[in-house]
Amino acid sequence: MPSPSRGRRNRRSKGGEKAAPVAAPAYITRKIPEYEILGEEGLAIIEANADTILEETGIDFKDDPEALEMWKEAGASVDGQRVRFPKGMCRKIIQDNAPNQYTQHARNPAKSVEIGGKHTVLVPAYGSPFIRNLDEGRRYATIEDFRNFVKLAYMTPHLHHSGGTVCEPVDLPVNKRHFDMNYAHMKYSDKPFMGSVTAGERAQDTVDMCEILFGDNYIDEATGRPKTITTSLINANSPMSFDDTMLGALKVYAKNNQACIVSPFILAGAMSPVTVAGTSAQALAEALAGMAFAQLVNPGVPVIFGTFASSMSMASGAPTFGTPEPALVLNVMASLARRLGVPFRSGGGFCGAKVADAQAGYESSNSLWPAINAGVNFVLHTAGWMEGGLVMGYEKFIMDCDQAGMLATYAKGVDLSENGQAMDAIEEVGPGQHFLGCAHTQANFREAFYHSPINDNNSFEQWKEDGELDLAQRANAYYKKQLNEYELPAMDPAVDEALIEFMEKRKASFPDSNIA
Amino acid sequence: MPSPSRGRRNRRSKGGEKAAPVAAPAYITRKIPEYEILGEEGLAIIEANADTILEETGIDFKDDPEALEMWKEAGASVDGQRVRFPKGMCRKIIQDNAPNQYTQHARNPAKSVEIGGKHTVLVPAYGSPFIRNLDEGRRYATIEDFRNFVKLAYMTPHLHHSGGTVCEPVDLPVNKRHFDMNYAHMKYSDKPFMGSVTAGERAQDTVDMCEILFGDNYIDEATGRPKTITTSLINANSPMSFDDTMLGALKVYAKNNQACIVSPFILAGAMSPVTVAGTSAQALAEALAGMAFAQLVNPGVPVIFGTFASSMSMASGAPTFGTPEPALVLNVMASLARRLGVPFRSGGGFCGAKVADAQAGYESSNSLWPAINAGVNFVLHTAGWMEGGLVMGYEKFIMDCDQAGMLATYAKGVDLSENGQAMDAIEEVGPGQHFLGCAHTQANFREAFYHSPINDNNSFEQWKEDGELDLAQRANAYYKKQLNEYELPAMDPAVDEALIEFMEKRKASFPDSNIA
Repeated sequence: MPSPSRGRRNRRSKGGEKAAPVAAPAYITRKIPEYEILGEEGLAIIEANADTILEETGIDFKDDPEALEMWKEAGASVDGQRVRFPKGMCRKIIQDNAPNQYTQHARNPAKSVEIGGKHTVLVPAYGSPFIRNLDEGRRYATIEDFRNFVKLAYMTPHLHHSGGTVCEPVDLPVNKRHFDMNYAHMKYSDKPFMGSVTAGERAQDTVDMCEILFGDNYIDEATGRPKTITTSLINANSPMSFDDTMLGALKVYAKNNQACIVSPFILAGAMSPVTVAGTSAQALAEALAGMAFAQLVNPGVPVIFGTFASSMSMASGAPTFGTPEPALVLNVMASLARRLGVPFRSGGGFCGAKVADAQAGYESSNSLWPAINAGVNFVLHTAGWMEGGLVMGYEKFIMDCDQAGMLATYAKGVDLSENGQAMDAIEEVGPGQHFLGCAHTQANFREAFYHSPINDNNSFEQWKEDGELDLAQRANAYYKKQLNEYELPAMDPAVDEALIEFMEKRKASFPDSNIA
Repeated sequence: MPSPSRGRRNRRSKGGEKAAPVAAPAYITRKIPEYEILGEEGLAIIEANADTILEETGIDFKDDPEALEMWKEAGASVDGQRVRFPKGMCRKIIQDNAPNQYTQHARNPAKSVEIGGKHTVLVPAYGSPFIRNLDEGRRYATIEDFRNFVKLAYMTPHLHHSGGTVCEPVDLPVNKRHFDMNYAHMKYSDKPFMGSVTAGERAQDTVDMCEILFGDNYIDEATGRPKTITTSLINANSPMSFDDTMLGALKVYAKNNQACIVSPFILAGAMSPVTVAGTSAQALAEALAGMAFAQLVNPGVPVIFGTFASSMSMASGAPTFGTPEPALVLNVMASLARRLGVPFRSGGGFCGAKVADAQAGYESSNSLWPAINAGVNFVLHTAGWMEGGLVMGYEKFIMDCDQAGMLATYAKGVDLSENGQAMDAIEEVGPGQHFLGCAHTQANFREAFYHSPINDNNSFEQWKEDGELDLAQRANAYYKKQLNEYELPAMDPAVDEALIEFMEKRKASFPDSNIA
């Protein structure tokens, strides 16, 4: 726990004083039904198979004696690092304890998000060591890039979250960069964000910084527990194991009532069977074990059921994205999460494309559609993802944000109000006439259709006159304009100072290292 | 009716002797459920509104006294060219007569397609005056381009249909190009195709050429009616009118038992209200009137309920594609068609993009996903569409065919067989190991995942070594390779001669004209 800043933390964070550049709901509330590819029978088969995997094959909890002890106490069978679970045990632990929806608090309360149920939160891509833009091509990411993506995510009305490792700031020491990443999310945005997961103590630093950021507002008055300020990404080491790094971070977050996404990370064919049903059963087993473990650590802590599944080029072994099989896996897993009663994370603007070309467009859209139709609650990697996650693209980020806006419009569904039915317009206009000037069109046209700021729908002649730009070129101009127009959201200077002071003290307390 | 070739037509068409380059099912049979955005209540509201439009506002049948007479006789109220329909009348005519599914026959019986029900037929784009490729840019299309697209559609296993006006051969006289278009579909492909709709006599030429092509096989022995060999596109002149050109073609096709797609063609905001529910009610009313009319002409003739709806840039008035509102319209209309009990046409790889860039990818995918999820039966414009339909793109065609392949894989749904469940693989491999070498993977990997021939999923280094190509460049090489490798499907030389003879006679019988 940080101590030096106590006094300052009595002043509450004043995020929210300044309006965001574009007013928009803080998250999507879907008015469309969930699309379910499998029915009761198919889902029950997969659930039964997951139970069999948990009971017979088991899950490894590696290099974490505490975890093994906790499982033993809870009634699981522990053999070395292998844990086997009586049928239904993990499910019961989760259903007895985990909330089906929770609030992730932003320092600007207007930006807090609801995670679960009919809500969908769209989140930037995560984890790439490289960035790409048209001017520089592909290069290693820096903290400056990191800040840029935080700013761009802050400015778009179509992302609801600042994300986590929006890119790896490889110019900073591995063991200290989490401070600067956390600080960037806190300072340059007022949207919710994700915490560090690369070590237990880095998770603790994240929690401590959140406590400074929220000050007196850190503890929820109703529950007496810390507010959930971060949602962090805990990947399973598929197949069927969790390592001590991830478990260490999970334990810190869970103890502090911070949410974790427990995510099987699967390249089907390598880390799971090549089939959809096999991959789904395994991923369900892994997620059940991880989420139940979080409930053992702190009953009631929010957890998200995560799934990241890509298919594999059986020629080259490379992961492939925007392909049909992962779309099916996503759909099945979303149904399974709903049956379990926890929020679900998957989806994103995935692609294997090296540049922001048509492949990037097709593949990303192929990944986003299944996510919105399946009712994913937390869509990590919505914007910026390129080259299988190795690259965060500036132009790609802008394109994906535009898609995110379209998905939000789509998720509003069909307006069946009298105005939506528009029978007055049809009666007024009649056969063979046009609707452009009628009263209904005049009253509604401003809000009638989603407007893309970057897609070109002008005439060919106009497009030629505008320089024959492709989408990547238009997105390039757009992101630069955004960064030029960026304005810092207000923050209590005392909070800012306290955060900096905390970071400086902690950074000075141990030597730099680039060993992860 | 053509007479000179009677003798020759006794020899049956021998299409199908030569195997297609890639063996594949002739069409998709979806094993996934339909996604329905509106429930009973919402759909009933739209149906009631369509009934109100038909009864109170009415539909214009322009410059076609015969049509007006037929409506009067059927019990509609006719006032000038305006026809008003008692509530439920059109629906009853359709439900009493139109088939909910039909076979469109190909000269190669293995390529005949089922249209309706759980079946989906993917069809090339239609109607563009221009083509585009990387080498030449954008230019007017020719009959050579037309043949090229017929060949490419023939060669891909992912399109099930040769389409219709795959591009406008503007190098041929307007009033005679339908001969060459029909002949190209008949000669260079053995898949089913669409007929000419630009005049009643051109529709008759199409029917006559089909009769020559099928010879003794033209009449269905079971029914004594001509086989349905063409499915042709009859657009409504939205809002709420049909013109004599389209009605003329429809009557010829219907009389000859050839299928018509009755398609409201709507740019919402101009040709319909700006809302989804308003557009849907109007489109339903138009389609009901047109399909019922076809049943008056020939009870039992196959009809497809079509919808083409795009939204509009309210800034420039330009149509926009791949946007959320048309996705909603498509979904609603598919549900309405199912309730009516007729096959449904919509969707396609729509985009406004001028080049085959990321915009093209996003927008096309945004149009294809709603189509496959909503269960569209006849997906016109699946491949090649660019620039709002003005351009047929060579590279775009290849890209869209690849997407079509992915959709087919997706539509197979989840394999829940024992092999699909893959529990043996999970048991064999166990925690922390990999699945690459296990027996189940070895037995399944060849067929496990959809393989794209053009998307790049190699390492960055490999991609660099390969010349840093984007998708358009790879698709450029691919289509040229395809055209180089094209082989003509077998055709009885006597049939070929008869077709040519018929065309030459007909062409010589009236002067060239470029007035449409």
